[in-house]
Formats: sequence, structure tokens, C-alpha cells
Amino acid sequence: MKEIISSSSNPQYKLAFKISQTKRERTKQGLALLDGVHLVRAWLDAGREIETVLFTEAGAEKSEIEHLLQQIQAKTLCISEALFSTLSELPSATGLLAIVKIPTPPAAKVDGFCLLLDGVQDPGNVGAILRTAFAAGVQQVWLSAQCADIWSPKVLRAGMGAQVVLPCIENADLVSLAQSFKGQVVASLLDEAASDLYQTDLRGDIAFVMGSEGQGVSPEMAAMAKTKVLIPMQAGIESLNVGHASAIALYEVMRQNR
Amino acid sequence: MKEIISSSSNPQYKLAFKISQTKRERTKQGLALLDGVHLVRAWLDAGREIETVLFTEAGAEKSEIEHLLQQIQAKTLCISEALFSTLSELPSATGLLAIVKIPTPPAAKVDGFCLLLDGVQDPGNVGAILRTAFAAGVQQVWLSAQCADIWSPKVLRAGMGAQVVLPCIENADLVSLAQSFKGQVVASLLDEAASDLYQTDLRGDIAFVMGSEGQGVSPEMAAMAKTKVLIPMQAGIESLNVGHASAIALYEVMRQNR
Repeated sequence: MKEIISSSSNPQYKLAFKISQTKRERTKQGLALLDGVHLVRAWLDAGREIETVLFTEAGAEKSEIEHLLQQIQAKTLCISEALFSTLSELPSATGLLAIVKIPTPPAAKVDGFCLLLDGVQDPGNVGAILRTAFAAGVQQVWLSAQCADIWSPKVLRAGMGAQVVLPCIENADLVSLAQSFKGQVVASLLDEAASDLYQTDLRGDIAFVMGSEGQGVSPEMAAMAKTKVLIPMQAGIESLNVGHASAIALYEVMRQNR
Repeated sequence: MKEIISSSSNPQYKLAFKISQTKRERTKQGLALLDGVHLVRAWLDAGREIETVLFTEAGAEKSEIEHLLQQIQAKTLCISEALFSTLSELPSATGLLAIVKIPTPPAAKVDGFCLLLDGVQDPGNVGAILRTAFAAGVQQVWLSAQCADIWSPKVLRAGMGAQVVLPCIENADLVSLAQSFKGQVVASLLDEAASDLYQTDLRGDIAFVMGSEGQGVSPEMAAMAKTKVLIPMQAGIESLNVGHASAIALYEVMRQNR
């Protein structure tokens, strides 16, 4: 019979709690917390290692978690439902959490299909954008320091693990990365002078810039972008949700490059 | 000096509170609550009338609200900040709320560009989809009874007033509406047997079906759709956020019909 930890002074629990709470702690420790079978499986499928697994007794009785626990080479810790609920944002407990090392960011690509997020702050938007970007064939994502932390529980949940398979560079200096990029830098702007997305040649190496929810693309990045595009919209609407706009733009790039 | 209502037993306040809370009350009263200048202005711009305006003293000092209050032919009620905060979900008080009659649903279109939402439950998704649908030229939206209530505060906020300009039929019998539709009924499915979105002819009258977050399009509606399309995705990703998928699909319909 395995011991069930119910004390909030347990060091592994304390560590998990800290990294679930703030970006500062995640950065300091270099660790993130994955919640649920889907994310943990995506992590293992990507060939990555897990530091510590935390699960509940009820969780371990689910066959998919039992099966995963047998595969994982890591410290495992059975914790009480009460402790588990303080670590999870999900309304119904998944029963499984994993502490993992945040991957080292890749070297910046200078060609191919890159996405630049310029101050996208809403965690749900950032997560869903990563998921769509991966689906559309984006090879690398650069995020400015103002963007939501991609290793936060909310972004991990909305991204459904896209973070795990899609190389991302956080706190990126978008201007200097764009300067080094050998292909076309394109920014999506709410500007009548920009060219219609569907009448713009988006073939070949491309770095696509999407701006923040309220402000759009920053003036510095707008200046960097040789090509400015506008998603056509019916009169009477001011703008689209940034996630939806990203989906439309990235899929148009994909369509033109097939 | 205008009286400031601070009692929660004020009948107008009580009505506003009830309709802010549940769909049942909104349906019973036939009323919805608009929060903030943007939504109220969109409502007036559409030529619609307001039943009652509730504002705070601080709100009335903002020039755009002061200006709006002068235009509005309706009962106005100055309420305390404390009461206002119980009526608004927004973190910082907008200072302006309007009670309005929910519009009578239009007669169902049998041609043109229609969107069918089959069980989309997340309020943020439904709101953002309405906004994108309007931008893409959708002329009418049909929502099954399982969808989020489009007159709820969350959907109104995410839709940024698209509800006001885009005719919607809630609690719709999608199967019978689709049966009466004279054009192509197309459903987006996660099915390898479906045809590639970009290799499907989407020109002409079209009723496009998007399914729920977890389950996708219902079997009944999948059976109704003569054309089934799949949004192409990079291997390794299971699905897209339903809002992003809607944006991609509706804009592809728009692109082909330009």
C-alpha cells in the first residue's frame, strides 16, 4: 500500500504548487507542471523525460493513468485529493500531474514558416494559436516578452500540448529575429492601406507577425514588415479575435504553399 | 442632482440582476443586458431601442457615456458602484448598462450563406464565432438548443456586438432547417474520409455546419450534410479549437465566393 501524501509541507508538493502559480517560479526552477493524461502522453511521445509524477488514488485506478504510470521512469508521489485540487485549474480532477523540465529554446530559424506573436496576452488565445500554428505547418514560434507564458497551466491547457511539439522561443527580440530572417516578413494589420490577404503572394519562406488583442502589431514590428496584409471583413465589424485572425492568416499561407 | 440608487430592492436593479444571471430569466422576460459603450452604441447604430439605462456617477462623467446618455430615449437610472459591480462581469466597471428587448428571430433563410452551430457550448467560442461569421459575410446563424445563449453577458462580450447585426435563430431545429435549405449543406468533420476543405467546391448557396467542442458534429447533422470537409492538419495534432476551425472554414467559403 503506497503512502498518500496529505501534508502541504511535502517538498515535492511545495515545488509543484510554486511552479503552478507564477512564471517567475517556473523560470527560476526551469520547470513546468503538466495536468492530465493528454499532456503527459504528448510529452512522453515527444521523447521527453519527466521529473516527478503526482497522482491521486482515484486517478491511479483509471486504466489509462495506471498504464502511463507503469511506463514512466520518474519519482512518483501519491497525493490526497485535497492537495491535488490546489494544483489543478480543471473543474474535475484529472488525477495525474507531471513536473517536467522546460525545454531549452531552439536556435532561431532564418527560413521556413515562422510565426511571431507580438504581445498576445490572453492565455487562451496563445494556447489555441500554438495549436493552430502547428496544424498549419508553422515550424517555429517567436513570442515577445509581453506574451502569455506558454508553460502556464492555462496556455498548456488551451494549447493541448502544441508547446511540446512546436519549437518556441519566448521573451524573443522580435525585431532582431525578423532582421535575420531571409524570407518575407509579413504583418497582419487593421489598416486599409495594407494589401488584401488573399491577393498577396505568401509563398516561400515567411515570418508572419500577429499583434496584441488591443493594440495590434507594434510600430517597430510594423516597420520591419515589408508586406502588410489585411484580412477582408464585412463593413460594420471592427476587428476579429486575434486567435481567429491567426487561424485565417496561417491557413492562407499553408494553402498557397501546398 | 440626480438620485443615486443604492438599494438592491429597486425594481429596475432587480430586473437587471435577474437577466444578467440566467438564460431562463432572459427568455422569460425577453430581455438582455448590454454592458459598456461599445455594445450600447452598436445597439443604437442598428436602429434598436433601449428599455432602461443604468449608469454610475463616475460613468456619466466620461464624455462618451455622457454623449450617449443624451441620445438615448429611455428610462435612466443612476446606481451606486456597489450595485453596478454585481451586474457586470468586467474587471473594471464600464459605468454603463442597458436593458434591451431580445430581437424576434428572423424567418429562416433557405439560400445564401448560413452557419449552423451544432452544440457549441463555450460562451467565448460562440461569441468569437459570431464576430468572425459576420466578418466573413455569413447572413444568418442557426444555433441548436445545446449552444451557449448568445444573449448571455459572456457571449455578448466575446461577440463584441455581432449578435446585434447578424440575424440568429436560437434553439433551432437544425435538421429541419437544413432540410429546407436549397443550397449545399456542408459539415466540418474530423474524418479522414471527408474531402479536403481546399479541394471542395464551396461556391453558391451554402449552409455550413460546425460541431461541438468535444463531440464534433452530431450524427443527425452529419447525415444531413451532403458534403463533408476536413481542415487539413499537420500529423501529430488531433483537432483545432472550434472557433479557429470555424474561422478557417468560413473564410475559405468567402474566398471561393468572391
